[in-house]
Amino acid sequence: MVETLHATSLQEVKRGYRMLITSPTIKIARTQSKKPNTAKAAITKVSLLSSEDSLRIEPPNWWIDMAHNTVELLVRSTKIKTMLQTYRQKRLAEEAASIEVSIPYPDVVLKKVNISERGAYIFLTLEIKSTAEAGTMPINFSDGTTRFTYEYPLFARIMPKGFSMKDVKGFTSADAMYLITPDRFANGDESNDKIPTMRDTVLNRKDKDARHGGDIAGIRKRLRYIKDLGFTSIWICPMLENNMTQTSYHGYAITDFYKIDPRFGTNEDYKALCTEANKIGLKIINDMVVNHCGLEHWWMKELPADDWINFQSQPYTETNHQKSVFVDPYATELDKKNLTEGWFVPTMPDLNQRNPNMARYLIQNSIWWIEYAGLSGIRMDTYPYSDKTFMANWSKAIMTEYPNFNIVGEIWHKEPSVTAYWQRGKVNSDGYESHLKTLMDFALQRAVVQALTEPRSYESSWQRVYELLAQDFLYANPQDMLIFLDNHDMSRVFTQLKENLQSYKLAITLLLTMRGIPQVYYGTEILQVNRQSEDHGVIRGDFPGGWKQDAVNAFEGKGLTTAQKEARDFLKRLLNWRKNQLIVQQGRFMHFAPSAKDDCYVYFRYLGKKSVMVVLNNHEQVAALQTDRFAEILKGAKTGKDVLSGKTVNLINEFEVPAKSAMVIEVGE
Amino acid sequence: MVETLHATSLQEVKRGYRMLITSPTIKIARTQSKKPNTAKAAITKVSLLSSEDSLRIEPPNWWIDMAHNTVELLVRSTKIKTMLQTYRQKRLAEEAASIEVSIPYPDVVLKKVNISERGAYIFLTLEIKSTAEAGTMPINFSDGTTRFTYEYPLFARIMPKGFSMKDVKGFTSADAMYLITPDRFANGDESNDKIPTMRDTVLNRKDKDARHGGDIAGIRKRLRYIKDLGFTSIWICPMLENNMTQTSYHGYAITDFYKIDPRFGTNEDYKALCTEANKIGLKIINDMVVNHCGLEHWWMKELPADDWINFQSQPYTETNHQKSVFVDPYATELDKKNLTEGWFVPTMPDLNQRNPNMARYLIQNSIWWIEYAGLSGIRMDTYPYSDKTFMANWSKAIMTEYPNFNIVGEIWHKEPSVTAYWQRGKVNSDGYESHLKTLMDFALQRAVVQALTEPRSYESSWQRVYELLAQDFLYANPQDMLIFLDNHDMSRVFTQLKENLQSYKLAITLLLTMRGIPQVYYGTEILQVNRQSEDHGVIRGDFPGGWKQDAVNAFEGKGLTTAQKEARDFLKRLLNWRKNQLIVQQGRFMHFAPSAKDDCYVYFRYLGKKSVMVVLNNHEQVAALQTDRFAEILKGAKTGKDVLSGKTVNLINEFEVPAKSAMVIEVGE
Repeated sequence: MVETLHATSLQEVKRGYRMLITSPTIKIARTQSKKPNTAKAAITKVSLLSSEDSLRIEPPNWWIDMAHNTVELLVRSTKIKTMLQTYRQKRLAEEAASIEVSIPYPDVVLKKVNISERGAYIFLTLEIKSTAEAGTMPINFSDGTTRFTYEYPLFARIMPKGFSMKDVKGFTSADAMYLITPDRFANGDESNDKIPTMRDTVLNRKDKDARHGGDIAGIRKRLRYIKDLGFTSIWICPMLENNMTQTSYHGYAITDFYKIDPRFGTNEDYKALCTEANKIGLKIINDMVVNHCGLEHWWMKELPADDWINFQSQPYTETNHQKSVFVDPYATELDKKNLTEGWFVPTMPDLNQRNPNMARYLIQNSIWWIEYAGLSGIRMDTYPYSDKTFMANWSKAIMTEYPNFNIVGEIWHKEPSVTAYWQRGKVNSDGYESHLKTLMDFALQRAVVQALTEPRSYESSWQRVYELLAQDFLYANPQDMLIFLDNHDMSRVFTQLKENLQSYKLAITLLLTMRGIPQVYYGTEILQVNRQSEDHGVIRGDFPGGWKQDAVNAFEGKGLTTAQKEARDFLKRLLNWRKNQLIVQQGRFMHFAPSAKDDCYVYFRYLGKKSVMVVLNNHEQVAALQTDRFAEILKGAKTGKDVLSGKTVNLINEFEVPAKSAMVIEVGE
Repeated sequence: MVETLHATSLQEVKRGYRMLITSPTIKIARTQSKKPNTAKAAITKVSLLSSEDSLRIEPPNWWIDMAHNTVELLVRSTKIKTMLQTYRQKRLAEEAASIEVSIPYPDVVLKKVNISERGAYIFLTLEIKSTAEAGTMPINFSDGTTRFTYEYPLFARIMPKGFSMKDVKGFTSADAMYLITPDRFANGDESNDKIPTMRDTVLNRKDKDARHGGDIAGIRKRLRYIKDLGFTSIWICPMLENNMTQTSYHGYAITDFYKIDPRFGTNEDYKALCTEANKIGLKIINDMVVNHCGLEHWWMKELPADDWINFQSQPYTETNHQKSVFVDPYATELDKKNLTEGWFVPTMPDLNQRNPNMARYLIQNSIWWIEYAGLSGIRMDTYPYSDKTFMANWSKAIMTEYPNFNIVGEIWHKEPSVTAYWQRGKVNSDGYESHLKTLMDFALQRAVVQALTEPRSYESSWQRVYELLAQDFLYANPQDMLIFLDNHDMSRVFTQLKENLQSYKLAITLLLTMRGIPQVYYGTEILQVNRQSEDHGVIRGDFPGGWKQDAVNAFEGKGLTTAQKEARDFLKRLLNWRKNQLIVQQGRFMHFAPSAKDDCYVYFRYLGKKSVMVVLNNHEQVAALQTDRFAEILKGAKTGKDVLSGKTVNLINEFEVPAKSAMVIEVGE
C-alpha cells in the first residue's frame, strides 16, 4: 500500500509552520504485513554537511508502555551525510534517486520520514504500540546502492510491581526544597575536575566565573546532610553538558540535551544520585531549559531548518524581557515577538519551539530525563520567554505522562497579576490554558526583604507582605507557589537582610510557615553572603567543606561561627517540625492586618479545628499582644506552645513577643 | 383596615438590623378610601429630647414622577418632642396612649411609621404614586389631645419638554475635569466671609487651616476662565455646611446634609451655579461624603438609634485603612469590620449605613441634590470605607434614577487588582456587584510621577507606567477611570515633579492623551506649588487673582511668570485640541515597550483607520525614532502632524524627538 502524505504537508504549511519536507511527493510504502515499514523520500534539495560527525539518534532510546508512544527520532550520521550527497549528485545529473527507510520490528510502525531542508538530518516518526516488546530495533537506510542499519534500544520501564505512572509524585507543599549550584557545592570526585577535550579547562576556585569542581559525587556524599536539615527535595541547577569556552559552570548554556556534563559526572552517575536520593526520601528536581541552548551546541554547526533558531539569519536581537505582554490588552505584536524570539545573551541561541520538530525534540527530551533518572520534578528556566503555546503543550505532555508530577516555572515578575497568567487553572481572558502547576513567587521574596530592611513608615513594615498576600485571589492556587528568600540569580538573603540575624530568623519563620512550597538556597543555612559584589559568580560561592582543603566544614559543623550554628539550628528545627505539620503543609491561611504601632504580623494556618499561630515582631520593642483581637480564630483557646522556644503561651488575655523575633504557636484548647 | 407590621419587624431583626420601632405592636390604620392615611404607634420607650430644636423634615421636599417614589421622611420638631413626652408620661402612669399620623393627600400613601428608639424622631415612609400631583402635602400628627400639621412640598420636576431621566448625562472620557477647593479658589462675595452665628468665625488667609473666603460667587465669576482653558466639567470639593469649630474650610466634616455652607452661599446660589455652568457646557460634579459626618452634625446631640453611628457607645476606634480586605482571601472579619466601621478621625463620626433608616437617608440625600441642582456627576469620598452592600445599593439607586449619570469613587490604593473590585462590570470571586462606573486611578498618578522623577535604571523610566497599564485587564472598563496628576489630598504635581517644566509638559501630555477621564487640580495650569510643606492646608493654596487684593491675577493672565504662561498655554492648547478628538476620547490604546536606550514611551490612540501617535521622550538626549518599529499601527503612513509644535513629521524612515519633550502626532496617510 502506498499512501500519499501530501495533504498533511499542506495542512502544516497552512498552520504557518515551515515544512521540513522539501519534496512535493513524500511517500510511505508499507508492506501488506504491517512490518517491516518502509518509507521513501524523493528529495529535491539537500545542503552539504559542513563538518565531520558520527551517529547521533535522539532520544537515544525510548521505552515501551509509555503514554507518549509516538516518538520522533532525530537521526544524523556520517553515513547519512554520504547517502544524501550521492542522492543530491544523482538528482543534479537528472538520474533516478530515492532513499528508503524501514523498521522491521514487531508492533512498531514507522509513520513518517522527514528529511530536513538543511543539514543531514532525517526525522523518523514511530508509533510504539502497546503490544510492542523491549529489545533492539533495527532502522534500515538504503538508497538502492548503499545500505546500513542503526540499532535503536527500546527499554522496558523500570517500575516496581504495582507501581503506575500516577505513582510518580512531584513535589508539593508538603515538601521543602534545597537549591544547589552543583559546581559550587561539593567536589566529590577530583578526577573529573578538568576534562582536557572540552573547551573550558580552567579550574580555579579564585575565579568567580570559572569552574570550581563541584559535582554529582559531591552531592551524593552530602545527601544525608540535606536530609538531616529537614529538606525533602533538591533542585539542582542544570547539569547537562555546557561545552562552552568560558563561564561554563552555571549550566544554562546547554550544548547537549542528552548528556550530563562530564565535569559533573556521567548520565549513570546522575541516575544513581536520583535513585539514592529517592531512597532516603529526597526528591530530585531537574533544572531544565527549553528557551535557549549554548552557542556551542553541536547542532549550531549545521542547523536542521531555516527556523530552528529564532532570528536565525537576522541581526542579533535581544529579548525585551517584557513579561507582561500576554496579559496586556495594549501590547503590540512586535513586543510579543521580541519577548519570546529575542535572545537572552549572544552566547545563547533562542530555540524556535514553533518549529514542530524542535517542539517534539524538547518535549521528548524532558520526558526522557524523567523516565531515565526517575525525577520528581522539573524547574523550568525562563518560562515566559519560550513560545507560550509550546509551553502549554510541553507541560501538558509531561503531566499526561505523569499525572502527579510537578513543574515549577520561573516567571520573574513583581506583579502577581502578570505571574498568575501562567498557572494551571487560571481563567485568562485570552483563553490561554496553562498546564503549569507551580510558579516561583518572586513578588513575595521582594516583599519580605523590603519588609525587613526598609524603614518603617506610618504603616507597618509588614504592610507590603500583607497587601501582596491579599492579591493571592489572582492565583488559581496560591498553595502551589514556590516561595523563597533567595536563589542563584539574586543576592544571598543574609546579604539582602544586611546580615541581621534577627531579620533572618523572621524571614525563615515566614518562609517555613507561609502558604506554598518553601525553597532554600544552599549555604543560606549558614548565612552565606556576597559582600563585595552582586555578581552571580560571587553569589554562587563555594559551600565550606565541599572541598577537602577547606578550613571550615559546614557539613560536619566544624569551624562555624556561633551565628552560623544558631541560624542552621533555627532552620533545622523549623524544617523538621514542618515535616510533620499537616496544618502548615495543607492548612488554610488567615492574616490580621498589621499596624505600625507594634509592627507585628500575625497569621494563622488552620485545618479542621487545629491551628498554628505565627507572630512576627519586627519592632525593636517587645510587643504585648492582646488575644481578644484573634478571637475569631482562637475560639477560646487558653494556651499554646511556641515551637521555637518550647515555652507554653497563655492565650487568655495577652502575651509578650520579644523584640525583633518570631513565635510559632501550636494553639491548644 | 388594620394591618400588623410585627412580622416585618422580626424579619428585620433577623437580618441583624437594630429595629427603630420599639413597640411590639405597631399598627397602621387605613381608611377604606385610600386617603387620608393614618398610622398609630404604641410607643413603649422614648428618650427625652436633650436640646431645644425646631422643625426638621428631611428630605425637605420630594418630586413627583421620580423612579425613586417611595421616600422615607425623617421628622423631628419641638412639637413632636412634647408629644412624645406626654405620651411617655401617660405610659408611665399606665394610661392609654397613642400617636396618630395621617397624610390626607391624593395618590400619596403613608406606608409605614417608625418611631426611633432614641430621640424624638419619627420616620414616615410614603409612596408617591405616578398619578400624584405637585402641591403642598399636609402631615397630621395627633395624640388625641394635641394635634398639629406640617406641610410638605411635592415639586414637579423641572425638565425641558421631551427631556427624560436618560438625558441627564454624567461625565465621560469625552470630558476633562477641573477640580476646585472652593474656599481657596475665588472670593466672589465678601459679605459671606464670616458668619457670626457659626462656630468657626476665623477668616485668615495666612492661616493654612482657616477659611480664606472663596465661595460660589467666586466660581460663578470664573466659569468662563475654566471653559476657555478647555475643561468641560468641574468637580468642586464639598460645599455642604461644615459648622465645625476649626479647620472647617475643606468641607469633609458635614454638619447638615441639606444645606450649603453659608460661607460659600445658599442652596439657591449653588443651584444657580450649576445652571449657569451647564448653559456654557460645563458639567458640575458634586463631592459627596456618606462615610462620615462632622462631630458637630445636629443629630450628634441626640442620635435616632443605638447604631446610627459605628462604634457609637464603644471606645474610639480608628479605621485600619486596609482597603484590600474585600479581595483578600485571607482577611479576617475583624479587619473588614475595622475598615468600614472605624472612624477616619475623632472629629468625624462614622455613619452606620447598615442601619436601614440611615441608608435610606443617604440615598435620598444624594438623589435630592442631583435633582435639586441639576448635577452631572458625583465624586464619592472614601468609597471603600462605607458598608459595601450599602454602596452598591446607593450607586444602583442613583444609576436607576439617572441611567446616563456618572459617579467616581475615591478608592485610594496602589494596586489595580484591589481597586478594580469596585468597578461596575467587574466579576468578583465573592459575587460582589458594584454599580460604580468610574474609579480614581491613583496607581497611574503614582507611576507617572515616579517615571518622571526617579533615576533611570537598566530599564526605561517609563517601565512602571508601561507595566501598570498592562494590568488594565483587571478593570472592567479602563476607559472609565478618572486619571490625574494630583488632587487636593497630595502634593501639587509641579512640586512632585521637582518644579521641572519639561517633566510637567510630559505629564500633562500623557494625562490628556491617555485612556480615561483627565482631571486637573485648580492652579496646576499655572504651576501652583507647595514648597514648604505637604500639609493639606498648604497644598490647597489660594488661586492668585481670586481675591481682589491679589497682586497677581491668573484669571486675567496678569503678573504670571513666563514659565506659568508657558504651562497654561501648553495645557490650554492640548485641552482644546482634545475636545474635538474622538480618537483620544473614545479610541483604543496601544503601547510599545519602552527601553532605557532612548527612554521614549510611544503609544497610539486609534479609532477606525485613524490614529494619534504620542511620543514621550524622558531622556536628556534627542531620540531618533525609527518608524519601521511601529509598522503594525502606522500601516505605511508617510506623514503626520505634531499637535504641539504644529510641524509636519516624516514617518517614512525616522524622525527626531527633542530631549525631555513630547510629541502628539496626528497620523496622516
